[in-house]
Amino acid sequence: MIKITFPDGAVREYEQGVTALEIAKSISEGLARNVLAANINGQVWDATRPITADSKLQLLTWTDKDGKSTFWHSSAHLLAEAVESQFPGVKFWVGPPVDNGFYYDMDLGGRKISEEDLQVLEKKMTELAAKKEVYQRKEISKADAVHYFEEKGDEYKLDLLQNLKDGEITFYTQGNFTDLCRGPHIPNTGFIKAIKLTNIAGAFWKGDEKNKQLTRIYGVTFPAKKELDEYLAMVEEAKKRDHRKLGKELGIFTFDDEVGPGLALWMPNGAIVIEELEKLAKTTEEKAGYHRVVTPHIAKESLYLTSGHLPYYQDSMFPPMELDGGKYYLKAMNCPHHHKIFAAEPKSYKDLPYRLAEYGTCYRYEQSGELFGLMRVRCLHMNDAHIYCTREQFYDEFKAVNEMYLKYFRIFGVDKYVMRLSLHDPAKLGKKYVDEPALWQETEALVRDVLVRTNTPFVEVQDEAAFYGPKIDVQIWSTIGREFTLATNQVDFAQGRRFKLEFTNKDNHPDTPLIIHRAPLGTHERFIGFLLEHYAGRFPTWLAPLQVKILPISDKFLEYAQTLLVSLKNADIRAEVDDRNEKIGKKIRDTELARVPYMLVIGEKEMSEGKVAVRRQGKGDLGVKELSAFIEEIKEEIRERK
Amino acid sequence: MIKITFPDGAVREYEQGVTALEIAKSISEGLARNVLAANINGQVWDATRPITADSKLQLLTWTDKDGKSTFWHSSAHLLAEAVESQFPGVKFWVGPPVDNGFYYDMDLGGRKISEEDLQVLEKKMTELAAKKEVYQRKEISKADAVHYFEEKGDEYKLDLLQNLKDGEITFYTQGNFTDLCRGPHIPNTGFIKAIKLTNIAGAFWKGDEKNKQLTRIYGVTFPAKKELDEYLAMVEEAKKRDHRKLGKELGIFTFDDEVGPGLALWMPNGAIVIEELEKLAKTTEEKAGYHRVVTPHIAKESLYLTSGHLPYYQDSMFPPMELDGGKYYLKAMNCPHHHKIFAAEPKSYKDLPYRLAEYGTCYRYEQSGELFGLMRVRCLHMNDAHIYCTREQFYDEFKAVNEMYLKYFRIFGVDKYVMRLSLHDPAKLGKKYVDEPALWQETEALVRDVLVRTNTPFVEVQDEAAFYGPKIDVQIWSTIGREFTLATNQVDFAQGRRFKLEFTNKDNHPDTPLIIHRAPLGTHERFIGFLLEHYAGRFPTWLAPLQVKILPISDKFLEYAQTLLVSLKNADIRAEVDDRNEKIGKKIRDTELARVPYMLVIGEKEMSEGKVAVRRQGKGDLGVKELSAFIEEIKEEIRERK
Repeated sequence: MIKITFPDGAVREYEQGVTALEIAKSISEGLARNVLAANINGQVWDATRPITADSKLQLLTWTDKDGKSTFWHSSAHLLAEAVESQFPGVKFWVGPPVDNGFYYDMDLGGRKISEEDLQVLEKKMTELAAKKEVYQRKEISKADAVHYFEEKGDEYKLDLLQNLKDGEITFYTQGNFTDLCRGPHIPNTGFIKAIKLTNIAGAFWKGDEKNKQLTRIYGVTFPAKKELDEYLAMVEEAKKRDHRKLGKELGIFTFDDEVGPGLALWMPNGAIVIEELEKLAKTTEEKAGYHRVVTPHIAKESLYLTSGHLPYYQDSMFPPMELDGGKYYLKAMNCPHHHKIFAAEPKSYKDLPYRLAEYGTCYRYEQSGELFGLMRVRCLHMNDAHIYCTREQFYDEFKAVNEMYLKYFRIFGVDKYVMRLSLHDPAKLGKKYVDEPALWQETEALVRDVLVRTNTPFVEVQDEAAFYGPKIDVQIWSTIGREFTLATNQVDFAQGRRFKLEFTNKDNHPDTPLIIHRAPLGTHERFIGFLLEHYAGRFPTWLAPLQVKILPISDKFLEYAQTLLVSLKNADIRAEVDDRNEKIGKKIRDTELARVPYMLVIGEKEMSEGKVAVRRQGKGDLGVKELSAFIEEIKEEIRERK
Repeated sequence: MIKITFPDGAVREYEQGVTALEIAKSISEGLARNVLAANINGQVWDATRPITADSKLQLLTWTDKDGKSTFWHSSAHLLAEAVESQFPGVKFWVGPPVDNGFYYDMDLGGRKISEEDLQVLEKKMTELAAKKEVYQRKEISKADAVHYFEEKGDEYKLDLLQNLKDGEITFYTQGNFTDLCRGPHIPNTGFIKAIKLTNIAGAFWKGDEKNKQLTRIYGVTFPAKKELDEYLAMVEEAKKRDHRKLGKELGIFTFDDEVGPGLALWMPNGAIVIEELEKLAKTTEEKAGYHRVVTPHIAKESLYLTSGHLPYYQDSMFPPMELDGGKYYLKAMNCPHHHKIFAAEPKSYKDLPYRLAEYGTCYRYEQSGELFGLMRVRCLHMNDAHIYCTREQFYDEFKAVNEMYLKYFRIFGVDKYVMRLSLHDPAKLGKKYVDEPALWQETEALVRDVLVRTNTPFVEVQDEAAFYGPKIDVQIWSTIGREFTLATNQVDFAQGRRFKLEFTNKDNHPDTPLIIHRAPLGTHERFIGFLLEHYAGRFPTWLAPLQVKILPISDKFLEYAQTLLVSLKNADIRAEVDDRNEKIGKKIRDTELARVPYMLVIGEKEMSEGKVAVRRQGKGDLGVKELSAFIEEIKEEIRERK
């Protein structure tokens, strides 16, 4: 018998060689029908692989990230099987799961694949899936594996085999298809109920443009038809809400070849959104007792040697500038500069917590192929702050930061979010993690406690903490259900010492502060990208670049419109008059398209009564009002950030 | 007879060989007593040098920059004469005028010079000056000049002679001292009435630390004792107001070796001043119809090749970063990025004037030896904007910018300022200046017209325009009379074409806009450096990092003090409670020292009556008031930026 430990700490005994699927069945048949794979002692396994020793077990289903990945990886094998049945002689490179589905790279021997081919393949995959073919794992010697692919004539798999060690090689077979694969896979193809092949693309072998171009087929699959339909609807909606498309239409940002990829230029409308977000952050942080600072965007190499970002983080930093016989780097993070401000004046415990905030602009190197609109950029305006505190103050400070996140979620209507609490692995203390077992336990417990006590939804992830302490990655979902990783909130034991930061404690001894790194609004780039999708470009009034458009029905009312404009501007409302010689219908349509929250339609009646006819974007007519009443309402809406 | 043209355009005839001094005498003896040198056809000459052809003449006195330089250069010769009389065998390198006086570098053969020596030298200089020795100019052959300094054994002057051409060499002699010098000089030593040797320093020969170290003696001289006294008082006051000293004391900024020289870190108090200045700029610019933008701090090489900053401005830029097989540069100016935003969407004449504003952070390379506090830095936060307009709009736009400068001067209590209008030289069109004679004349006339019509004090300077158009450098004086060059305002015909910027004009044809580059508040670095001196750290209330300090007389009143604090904060007033267990006298002294504008002293009487006793920094007791009355007054003071 072996002992199986469940996530809740319960321990049960099973026969040696039991599988995760059998364990699931022993709990409930319903559960077993949903088990895709299992996490055994931190590794993802086939649910059908025999367990031979005492183990920690977590059953993985569609709702687990690793369950989903396994499902999509198995779907890539299913795609390969379908392709091989249609195009004999095809050779395969790799077929990994990705964020939203999977792909497989293949050499079709010069054959072009079409949209119609995709439909045929989808149909074939559906047929094959219905057979409920089992994914069979087989350990195989390197010689036998090489022999197999030599027979098959697949030089790509032979290339992969070169880098694998004998004794660590496995094949997976389902139906008539066998692949070199380390797994894991779902129990059988029957789990795959809905299939969509989404795209065909070219991909250079090994990503090197000197190599042959392979065909990449993208797809996505689901355990139920309904989920595919929802997914396709979401994709359709996401296309309409594509932040790159909306960003251009609404004059939010632009990129320019001569400036460089990944370096957004924020246009006037984008700069207004930035300004409003910064006002929100500044007000919120000021009330929370933060001090603002302003720091340069570069520093000498020695600063990053002290922080340890060099050499460990070097690949994500821009290359150095050689100056005065030394090297200068663009900052990829603001913390070292803030630490220097902390250190510039002596501190006592009375000065703590000491909170330094800056919308700091950082530069990070991303491969040009990885850049994507505002989501992956090289220049990031970060809602950064660092809190220096004593261990006694830590709980309250971390809680306050957490509450700030929740406050922002309410403001932006983010209803679905999860905090991903990344913990250390005690086995890796002194290697991957700072060797401070007590501090790890203490702060992890404190952080968990904050999340539990504030009813914040969170998941715990082992062995994904930062080098210097536990961290929280915040994942939020837009209104159409797309996931965004936005912000982090990190505890730091290490940098305080590396920078020799000190305060005089109550006993009059020097002591090192704990540091909290936090960025609840993430970066302007990613956050505004998120907001564009989230609101479909219909910013709430307080964020809208233009808040009110005054639409005179004809030139006769232009003068009155201008007096209204002055009143609105005096009330600090962003307003414009549509003075074009156009029909009112067109003026309204154009203003709707520009996603301006309010329209004031001005005609004979409004002018003679000294009133305004109010239209709300997307909602239509709100009736005729006194201007002062309208101003009062909109001011309240803006002030409350409704 | 020759024709002499005066600055007002008047022409008079004189004998050939007449000197500027004689011309001055022909006008008035009083004028002649003040003539130090003369500008003859754009070159500065001895006032005693014969004029042999028709010429333009400007007499130079102490109030002219070139007059002052000549005076100080002649003083350097006087110093050299005094040194030689005291220390025979001394060898001289160079002795130029500088911003505030002059210096002479010399080799004293290992002798150390002391403060006492300086006093002896001052006395000797005064004696020599009283002799009214004439500065005599003599043209000399290279052979004779070499012979002279070989005889004297002065290898430094021989080194200088190596680089001079025969036929262009002159000696100047006054009393017993002869120097190799291209001049010009004042008529005689008698003009020098007040002398102060201010400093002794070491200076490597030719600025190279591998060379021998010479002795540098600094001095300053004046045409009247009173002016020296005023200067010394100003220097004394300037020391007290030194922005580096105040900046540290008041927690405004700091520098850090690991970050790098010339890269200011703005501490919490400095960031508040920055925030207030930016609020002022944003409000002012918003009312003036500017759009804000936000642009990255780097760009590809090609952007600066297009703008022409590369290679012409390369020495002032940071070195490149090699990335993706190309070069990226830190921006040294914001214009190219703004031009890209202008170009991002098609423009018509209806969109013009199009005004883009950004507090853009630029990086400029200054030699580390040139760096000085906030005055010469490598990271600059610039109050930048670019106005794209038609030629018809230019006058109004330039006038509006000029008025913005004047508005700012009033806000900051800058009573003395001069706009230095730099014009082109028609002879250098197509070489130093864009070859657009009509545009030069037109815009220069328009700019001059704006200055004249607005009664703005200005001087015109020939041949100092930018490559692309006339420019205005704004010089302002602090309350203690020190001069600062702060801001520029430039017209630009060239970049619009280089960047192919276009708008559709009224005739539906493509046209190129004129561009105004303007930065009325200069850079945060230089402007806050100026303000620290200007206000001696006593910022007006709206700019003060801390506006009100509440001083409870004892702990008994702490609770009441805290309720006052809440009221002040709710009114957006930056306030703190001094909760230290200190005597009220010390609390007041410390708050005065921290230059907090207002103190609220809280004792028994104030608490029982629910009032506050108000003290104004530097002014003392303002009496007991209702808190609401105090808040109303200070809010008004802040709102009006008094």
